[in-house]
Amino acid sequence: MLRSCAALLRTPGAPRGRPGAPRRSFSSEKVVQKDCALPNPSWSKDLRLLFDQFMKKCEDGSWKRLPSYKQFFSKTFQGFQTLYLDPSLVKGEEHAQLFTRSFEDGLGFEYVMFYNDAEKRVLCFLQVGPHLQGAPGFVHGGAIATMMDSTTGTCACRAGGIAMTANLNINFKRPIPLCSVVVIDSQLDKVEGRKLFVSCNVRSVDEKTLHSEASALFIKLDPDKSLRKKR
Amino acid sequence: MLRSCAALLRTPGAPRGRPGAPRRSFSSEKVVQKDCALPNPSWSKDLRLLFDQFMKKCEDGSWKRLPSYKQFFSKTFQGFQTLYLDPSLVKGEEHAQLFTRSFEDGLGFEYVMFYNDAEKRVLCFLQVGPHLQGAPGFVHGGAIATMMDSTTGTCACRAGGIAMTANLNINFKRPIPLCSVVVIDSQLDKVEGRKLFVSCNVRSVDEKTLHSEASALFIKLDPDKSLRKKR
Repeated sequence: MLRSCAALLRTPGAPRGRPGAPRRSFSSEKVVQKDCALPNPSWSKDLRLLFDQFMKKCEDGSWKRLPSYKQFFSKTFQGFQTLYLDPSLVKGEEHAQLFTRSFEDGLGFEYVMFYNDAEKRVLCFLQVGPHLQGAPGFVHGGAIATMMDSTTGTCACRAGGIAMTANLNINFKRPIPLCSVVVIDSQLDKVEGRKLFVSCNVRSVDEKTLHSEASALFIKLDPDKSLRKKR
Repeated sequence: MLRSCAALLRTPGAPRGRPGAPRRSFSSEKVVQKDCALPNPSWSKDLRLLFDQFMKKCEDGSWKRLPSYKQFFSKTFQGFQTLYLDPSLVKGEEHAQLFTRSFEDGLGFEYVMFYNDAEKRVLCFLQVGPHLQGAPGFVHGGAIATMMDSTTGTCACRAGGIAMTANLNINFKRPIPLCSVVVIDSQLDKVEGRKLFVSCNVRSVDEKTLHSEASALFIKLDPDKSLRKKR
């Protein structure tokens, strides 16, 4: 399968680089990656205000802004790569991009997450770009599911260690207008052995509209088993 | 919110067009859209074989290939636009792209769906590109959720009329390696008034690996209420 992945990446016409992609290291050159969880010109006033408000809350250490990158390199997920990943999969990984960061600025997911360790809580401020459309004028349910999975997953991993989604149960209450800003509020509810139970909801910035709710179950990975071996 | 959407679309540096996007009609010129559910050079042998096999099954009319486009125009979702969409939302819609078709060829979702009316069943053959990464080497849970929502949603709408997702409950069993091909098999299980119950599973091409299962509930839209009025 990785041969076909390599073939894909050689597809004529496929872009060879994107704005914000890291400069690749082919020698000992240091890889420089752009932190995507910082304001860019596509951010609306609503998103920028929420960002500024929570950056202030970070000053006393109660909240922490979480950086975010298009690609996984040395520091990010180093433990995952070392402990769980079959080496045969690593070849393709260097060409891959994180799904939620694979869009041009402003067209897809624009977001920043903040973590509160005392509350085991992650807040995600999300602006939904025009390339996330489902029904005309509204965000695709899959795009909402994606950011609910990402936010609850970040909450699970921050609170309990490296884990993967086992179940995601979403109630879609009110559709989200395309290009609006929403707040995803996620919290660790319970830990039972390797099981981490996390819930979240998606609300409008003024908190008046509850767009969606979800509960998620994550399983902490077992360092004795690679994901590949389980298959 | 649509003002901010328009602002996004004017962001300096944002691409003004993508390969495969329709030629825009500013006068009476006819809009020509690319059907994305047809083979392109990024398709792997596995995906091409499944496509050819089911195109044969279409010859007797039992199965039907479903075309798919980046944008909604006159024919697609015309009923939705007329009956359910607040006119104030339509302005932004012409710039928007369907989430699952907003990637360059081969980098995101490459898929084709086939519908069997007698069985009320949709099969989706999906190749997961390198920009759909979650954990290193594997597809993002949100990308899987997106295609499960799309496939069950297509099944619901084909079998029961225009409907939107109310609940999506996914069990993730085995992670999907990036750049592989999987089969999403979706079926209408039950209809209760305006409720449509649809289930689906995601398997490897050889059917040996069950990657995920989901149940979904869709609600048929009421022509007397626009989505905007409900908010």
